[in-house]
Amino acid sequence: MHRSRLAGFIIDCKNADLQSAAEFWSGALGMEARALPGEEGDKYVRLVDPRERLLIEVQSVSHESRVHLDIETDDVEAEVRRLEQLGAKKVQQVNTWWVMEAPTGQRFCVVRAKGPAFASEARTWK
Amino acid sequence: MHRSRLAGFIIDCKNADLQSAAEFWSGALGMEARALPGEEGDKYVRLVDPRERLLIEVQSVSHESRVHLDIETDDVEAEVRRLEQLGAKKVQQVNTWWVMEAPTGQRFCVVRAKGPAFASEARTWK
Repeated sequence: MHRSRLAGFIIDCKNADLQSAAEFWSGALGMEARALPGEEGDKYVRLVDPRERLLIEVQSVSHESRVHLDIETDDVEAEVRRLEQLGAKKVQQVNTWWVMEAPTGQRFCVVRAKGPAFASEARTWK
Repeated sequence: MHRSRLAGFIIDCKNADLQSAAEFWSGALGMEARALPGEEGDKYVRLVDPRERLLIEVQSVSHESRVHLDIETDDVEAEVRRLEQLGAKKVQQVNTWWVMEAPTGQRFCVVRAKGPAFASEARTWK
């Protein structure tokens, strides 16, 4: 038995100056941009959702620009197996998370639970 | 003076069988898939966010699969001008909405306000 939920989405920006990219998306979505500490801050800027609905980040990447979804879980391996049974495919393991590809073509990530609402909102899978 | 907010996101699926695509994403995100009435139902399936955080839909499209964000507003033309000033470009007007491209490369849409939380959550721009 494990749990998962939609954690949020990451705005991947190809070869972007991270601060400029975050400034655009902060203004466009009307959300404050917040620097992250340590190494995480070199690649990601948090956009603060005032209602804490979702975790939203701007990321500088080397691949094409896109928006990708993150699914958070208390058991990454079990969630990856569940998603494989639904038709998704493993693409690559990166640090503690898995990049997967949906049968409809989009890449998404399965990450360790970190959103504030995980405990109250995650679905339980048996 | 007008208002806008992040309405949600659309999961664009290239040449997809809409029901199969919606079934995958419904299962992956743990959200109920709900058919939409009329012509809208030919192209979109709603994924019901139990907390009504965001409007999430699966769409069958002819372009490459991706995830795109929707910004909702009570004044589409004013919001498009605001976003142009931030660096976005108009791509195409479709029915009542505009497709735009961010300076970081992602396409997104500016749509008429329709989310349940618009009145309480939208930012006001002067």
